[in-house]
Amino acid sequence: MQNFDFYNPTQIIFGKDTIGRLAELVPSEARVLVLFGGESARKNGTLAEVLTALGDRHVQEFGGIEPNPTYETLMRAVALVRRDGLDFLLAVGGGSVIDGTKFVAAAVPFAGEPWQILESFGAKVSKALPFGSVLTLPATGSEMNNGAVVTNKALQAKLPFRSPLVFPCFSILDPQKTFTLPESQIANGVVDAFVHVMEQYLTYPAGGLAQDRFAEGLLQTLIEIGPKALATPNDYEVRANLMWVATLALNGLIGAGVPQDWATHMIGHELTAAHGIDHARTLAVILPSLLTHCQQSKRAKLLQYADRVWQLKEGDEQGRIEGAIARTRAFFEQMGIATRLADYGLDQADIAPLISQLEAHGMTALGEHRSVTPEVSRAILEASL
Amino acid sequence: MQNFDFYNPTQIIFGKDTIGRLAELVPSEARVLVLFGGESARKNGTLAEVLTALGDRHVQEFGGIEPNPTYETLMRAVALVRRDGLDFLLAVGGGSVIDGTKFVAAAVPFAGEPWQILESFGAKVSKALPFGSVLTLPATGSEMNNGAVVTNKALQAKLPFRSPLVFPCFSILDPQKTFTLPESQIANGVVDAFVHVMEQYLTYPAGGLAQDRFAEGLLQTLIEIGPKALATPNDYEVRANLMWVATLALNGLIGAGVPQDWATHMIGHELTAAHGIDHARTLAVILPSLLTHCQQSKRAKLLQYADRVWQLKEGDEQGRIEGAIARTRAFFEQMGIATRLADYGLDQADIAPLISQLEAHGMTALGEHRSVTPEVSRAILEASL
Repeated sequence: MQNFDFYNPTQIIFGKDTIGRLAELVPSEARVLVLFGGESARKNGTLAEVLTALGDRHVQEFGGIEPNPTYETLMRAVALVRRDGLDFLLAVGGGSVIDGTKFVAAAVPFAGEPWQILESFGAKVSKALPFGSVLTLPATGSEMNNGAVVTNKALQAKLPFRSPLVFPCFSILDPQKTFTLPESQIANGVVDAFVHVMEQYLTYPAGGLAQDRFAEGLLQTLIEIGPKALATPNDYEVRANLMWVATLALNGLIGAGVPQDWATHMIGHELTAAHGIDHARTLAVILPSLLTHCQQSKRAKLLQYADRVWQLKEGDEQGRIEGAIARTRAFFEQMGIATRLADYGLDQADIAPLISQLEAHGMTALGEHRSVTPEVSRAILEASL
Repeated sequence: MQNFDFYNPTQIIFGKDTIGRLAELVPSEARVLVLFGGESARKNGTLAEVLTALGDRHVQEFGGIEPNPTYETLMRAVALVRRDGLDFLLAVGGGSVIDGTKFVAAAVPFAGEPWQILESFGAKVSKALPFGSVLTLPATGSEMNNGAVVTNKALQAKLPFRSPLVFPCFSILDPQKTFTLPESQIANGVVDAFVHVMEQYLTYPAGGLAQDRFAEGLLQTLIEIGPKALATPNDYEVRANLMWVATLALNGLIGAGVPQDWATHMIGHELTAAHGIDHARTLAVILPSLLTHCQQSKRAKLLQYADRVWQLKEGDEQGRIEGAIARTRAFFEQMGIATRLADYGLDQADIAPLISQLEAHGMTALGEHRSVTPEVSRAILEASL
């Protein structure tokens, strides 16, 4: 096992009818900015519940944070917070709103051009406003980690940052809030969580026995509940498990002390930045091809994955590896997520610009062995056509 | 899944040669009391490493915290901290030293007789000194939770308390520190961690799919590494996994949102208080009898445990349940831990006083259904003879 630090101070409030807990969780003197995405938070009543729980605190609203939140939009929130002297942020939404809120929290007290936060991958963050979240979309894990991804439209760049200062103080997870989500967002959430686990698990054996078992348990659970989450949208138990599993998939726990491979995410980010493809769909396209391409260096873990997650215990090793990758792709397709670039209207001509963008963003040595060069990324993209 | 709160702000520093990190983790102006147990911390050099890392901070020492730390001993530490105006505690040892340090942290600023902290199960704690730990014995999970158990010799009482104010600020886990532990302490640690998991898992199905998978993963890992931890004491990878698994077994994660059954611990505490039997050994005696006695109400989870942890998939249900309980007992025995009261010199005559003590401590409705009455505890103890 590798040496590691683990630290995650976010308080999770999980369960039915828990939004009222905001009354105790947000400081009573706080001047609050509530950040949200589209109008669904208002239409489905969640925003009203939040405002009721906040009582007579000073509260302002900032809606319109888009999927893949943009620097341009978020900087308007930064200006608002600075202008009106607000001191507590509350994200109401999914990963995009929470990611955006993390950026606003770090950008408000930042001296200088806040894009430097992204360019330094968070290293330049030395202060941040406190914030909490009310999660409405299980997927990214942002509600219990210190990472965020922001898109700069002008630069066509989608960059991540991390800082110990941008853990949410608390996150409220009420699975009932997912009942009204469109099917496509649930499908995206299942796939996003699945790939998060895979990127911390499917590398090489590093002796993290519990980490492996936990990762396998999360994958097995997603395989079990994913189709049910689509088939029976109002099944509280299914949605509760999806919500908690998606959180556990990226709260630092299963990745502690083991190698990680975020190449799928980094290549996928370029697909989203250039073509607007949903984040999770880019992952569903890239992961199967990446596993196939890197199967020699991932061989031992692929066999373990085949055995423990897909119960492929018979036949030769190559057959089990191919079977596990095929089942992975089939699971994404079962969730209604297409797994080929062609399904999104892309072809060979689109690959070269993606590789140029990877190079422009310094993504030239990805993967657990830093062996996913631009040439390897190109091969993976070609295998994804 | 049940509603739950999860909050665990302890920073974990895990790995080889990490004690030097104390230099950054303990505030530079702190006036530190280092608490430890017997003289092994001094003899094996750990204490010297700690003192070196603390540099020129004001440091005092308090040794002699016993296994099952006593109120009497800990109150001497409280007096010392108060007298000399110390403001940071550092536990160097295993669960007993860390538990004791939690009590000292809460007792120092406590107005009134600190035994009330135990009598109120922690409800009366409103302040605590900050503290960290350097873990040398994997077992109790105290290094990453907010619970502690203290023994009052005069009252022959062993009582637990919890408070959100007594999470360690940090815990340093260097698996190398376990190399010199006696075999019996490693065996105790494996059994203690195993039973911690069982008490949060082996109740009734509550729809916590990830919690179940995590618990099963920890149990499988303990079964895999327990015998190796005895056979090859200097195997870093084995000790690293034992250390991390024991922490994960009781950091709140696997118990979040699911029913729990701490009857084995509560009955076991009376055995330790009255007869001085090692904590883990009391658990190894009680758990198999408790599972047998309560098998009707635990039936569904016993079958799941038989299937997923012990791979008992054939034969009739009763056979699988009995097989799983027998394997549990055999695993404890394989670790060198005797599982019968007779092995510790106790007989039928010793049972009535234990029941009286359970009643005196209010332990009259234990278990996930609160159905472990004194009569049930008596039957469990009789089945453990």
